[in-house]
Amino acid sequence: MDQRRTAASSFHSDGIPPFEETPSPARLEGFSDGVFAIIITLLVLDIRVPREATLHGEPLAAALLKQWPVYVAYVLSFLQVGVVWANHHTMFHHIRRSDHVLLVCNLLLLLCVAVLPFTTALLAEYARAGEAELRLAALIYSAALAGAGIFFSAIWQHALSAGLVDARADPHRLHALGWHWELVPLFYGAAFGLAYVAPYLSVGMYMLLLIYYALPGPFVVRWMRVRRARRAAKT
Amino acid sequence: MDQRRTAASSFHSDGIPPFEETPSPARLEGFSDGVFAIIITLLVLDIRVPREATLHGEPLAAALLKQWPVYVAYVLSFLQVGVVWANHHTMFHHIRRSDHVLLVCNLLLLLCVAVLPFTTALLAEYARAGEAELRLAALIYSAALAGAGIFFSAIWQHALSAGLVDARADPHRLHALGWHWELVPLFYGAAFGLAYVAPYLSVGMYMLLLIYYALPGPFVVRWMRVRRARRAAKT
Amino acid sequence: MDQRRTAASSFHSDGIPPFEETPSPARLEGFSDGVFAIIITLLVLDIRVPREATLHGEPLAAALLKQWPVYVAYVLSFLQVGVVWANHHTMFHHIRRSDHVLLVCNLLLLLCVAVLPFTTALLAEYARAGEAELRLAALIYSAALAGAGIFFSAIWQHALSAGLVDARADPHRLHALGWHWELVPLFYGAAFGLAYVAPYLSVGMYMLLLIYYALPGPFVVRWMRVRRARRAAKT
Amino acid sequence: MDQRRTAASSFHSDGIPPFEETPSPARLEGFSDGVFAIIITLLVLDIRVPREATLHGEPLAAALLKQWPVYVAYVLSFLQVGVVWANHHTMFHHIRRSDHVLLVCNLLLLLCVAVLPFTTALLAEYARAGEAELRLAALIYSAALAGAGIFFSAIWQHALSAGLVDARADPHRLHALGWHWELVPLFYGAAFGLAYVAPYLSVGMYMLLLIYYALPGPFVVRWMRVRRARRAAKT
Repeated sequence: MDQRRTAASSFHSDGIPPFEETPSPARLEGFSDGVFAIIITLLVLDIRVPREATLHGEPLAAALLKQWPVYVAYVLSFLQVGVVWANHHTMFHHIRRSDHVLLVCNLLLLLCVAVLPFTTALLAEYARAGEAELRLAALIYSAALAGAGIFFSAIWQHALSAGLVDARADPHRLHALGWHWELVPLFYGAAFGLAYVAPYLSVGMYMLLLIYYALPGPFVVRWMRVRRARRAAKT
Repeated sequence: MDQRRTAASSFHSDGIPPFEETPSPARLEGFSDGVFAIIITLLVLDIRVPREATLHGEPLAAALLKQWPVYVAYVLSFLQVGVVWANHHTMFHHIRRSDHVLLVCNLLLLLCVAVLPFTTALLAEYARAGEAELRLAALIYSAALAGAGIFFSAIWQHALSAGLVDARADPHRLHALGWHWELVPLFYGAAFGLAYVAPYLSVGMYMLLLIYYALPGPFVVRWMRVRRARRAAKT
Repeated sequence: MDQRRTAASSFHSDGIPPFEETPSPARLEGFSDGVFAIIITLLVLDIRVPREATLHGEPLAAALLKQWPVYVAYVLSFLQVGVVWANHHTMFHHIRRSDHVLLVCNLLLLLCVAVLPFTTALLAEYARAGEAELRLAALIYSAALAGAGIFFSAIWQHALSAGLVDARADPHRLHALGWHWELVPLFYGAAFGLAYVAPYLSVGMYMLLLIYYALPGPFVVRWMRVRRARRAAKT
Repeated sequence: MDQRRTAASSFHSDGIPPFEETPSPARLEGFSDGVFAIIITLLVLDIRVPREATLHGEPLAAALLKQWPVYVAYVLSFLQVGVVWANHHTMFHHIRRSDHVLLVCNLLLLLCVAVLPFTTALLAEYARAGEAELRLAALIYSAALAGAGIFFSAIWQHALSAGLVDARADPHRLHALGWHWELVPLFYGAAFGLAYVAPYLSVGMYMLLLIYYALPGPFVVRWMRVRRARRAAKT
């Protein structure tokens, strides 16, 4: 890896840092955080207070309970976007420089993630509908996440090949993270196929993937890295 | 506490800082600020200008006054989110590193805070309604804040136990802040119970808690810290 | 002024910076920027595309022109919030530390600014209405801006008296900026009074103040500062 | 160029940096990123889930397909704002200081960009309508982008003439970037003229400009810079 990209070597002997033509990803992160923050709160706008005048004697509890798909969609979409954000955070913690290709891939990732409130609300609305409707909703839901997964791993592949990754990071960890993220488009591609055959199973698979990437994922990455480091030490 | 985590020791003798695997909480703060900023301004969208064509001879002042619960909800929700933000700010001023557990706890905190515009509007809408409706609205309002309080103190507990807190901070201050924040879920838990018995008293308790955490809270923390430091000096 | 607060003196001789209990205002600025960014774009949501199906033979140009108060409100609100933001930016460029009082004053400032899209839309809607309606709209508009002005100069007064201002800044410039900002609540207080007597004149005064704080203001500040520095040099 | 503005010379020999009266553009960038992030996600709000109860036997796929102009507008607006953001990012990577004129030009740029969701939705709605409607929509669309282009190149011109650009940057690159951005108002001015004569051609021209500034633009800049550096080396 390119040792000239480390922080220390970017200073001349006279103390003046040279002009870095490839900017740090700080502003890309700030912009993405803004987009993620808006997406994650969009579905709260759909939770409406039932107006007292429109209750017509119906108890408030019943009026609130009738809205349950909105609550489910809010929580699911919040967690889904939160998990994408947490992984984006981990990925860019390892990236020191950005270039135009990285900006474009990141924009396309955000384009796919920004439709999540829509695809989640669609899935929540047609979760109890006929199988044809659920199949279509499940296909659209998994297509958006598969698209996000493709651009997510494209960012990582490009950052590795263009030398944008921090040269000081542990290569075993980078390898484990690569596996972790390259599987996302494959998993959601599989969920897309499954949605044709068995839409209910496909919905179950989303839940499992959401939980995996939220919770045990980081521990699997740590385990893969340690195992690979041990193997490398043996040879 | 772990002295290796101080800023100065994170530089090698040759001036190259090593790669820090646990990132600084800067991006977590930026993302949370985005979410807080959106939540705090959401209720402004509910303040509608009465169209001239729909006044039908009614004076503008009357049309504006009729909307009063919307103004109350806006101000209350703004202050409530502002107080959560100010405490989040104080907490993360003491946290130097973040990890995956911290990210997840923070996401769950944001999930609870993001429903505040909804729960506040619900409380404002049913403040003058029957006791059954007010009770339900008060239960939901205090449940969301108790949930936020639980994740808020979970962040602090985890940061303390995982060594993510700045090792240079005054331990007496950390202790006082811990008390300050651990009481939040207890207070709102009590408000939840009170809402069953006396919903009006429960609403009064929210006001007191809001004022306490907005204004005298920081002075109580300072007083606790000084008292504890004096005691420690004696022994 | 307190020389211990300068950047250089905050490092011990062994290179480890001590823990600063009063945080830098960076996060307060980021949060405020988020709120300003949302407020400034809120009125775009009111610009609606006339649906083709609802034109009923009316030309598109006429349908678009009919919406003109929405465009005026958008441009005015954008500029007004932009001018507040630019002055907030200039003020906090001189502030090095923040404390709890500063956070609370800033929150109350944001509370007043966040209603600007509402008060501007109200003014645009009733600009051609009867004098009673225009008077009320003008009173509300100037009250919100007077409130913002009060908290704006409260931030500056508190920062000066609590030693939060950068000790390295030119005192003549600080003095000139103080005058610049302390006049805001007075100007809008006067506009509030004027709205009772002559609402049309009051609206003209808003325009003048908007233009003054957007354009020649910074030059007046520079001129005041130079004049004061010359006087001080003489004595 | 002004060598006193480089990073190294801004420190006194005793290690205390003097107070910089012209702030860094960091906060201007953060605020702009917030505005861009909101604009880019605004059109997602227009993608509505067809409610099951309102389908009346119509298949879900047909109900979703009927909304196609909303999807086109979302993708176009997302890419358009994304391209403006990426160029803003590149421009401010070269700018080290900001002043009041820069703040005002940037605000006017944001004012023009913030109407993009509206102008794009207008174009999508009337893309299949009569030629008179399409002409008007195309005129408005190109006017907003020409306005954005004018303020975009005004920022760059002012930054160059006021010495706000980083003195360490390669002058051949600055020259090439200048060409790249000064053509934007000319291109969209031409598209504005074309919209009178042949609105369909004008729409085609927007697509070409969008693709040019998203993809090959950075390579053209690099090529111009290398060519100019070679010429300079010869003479």
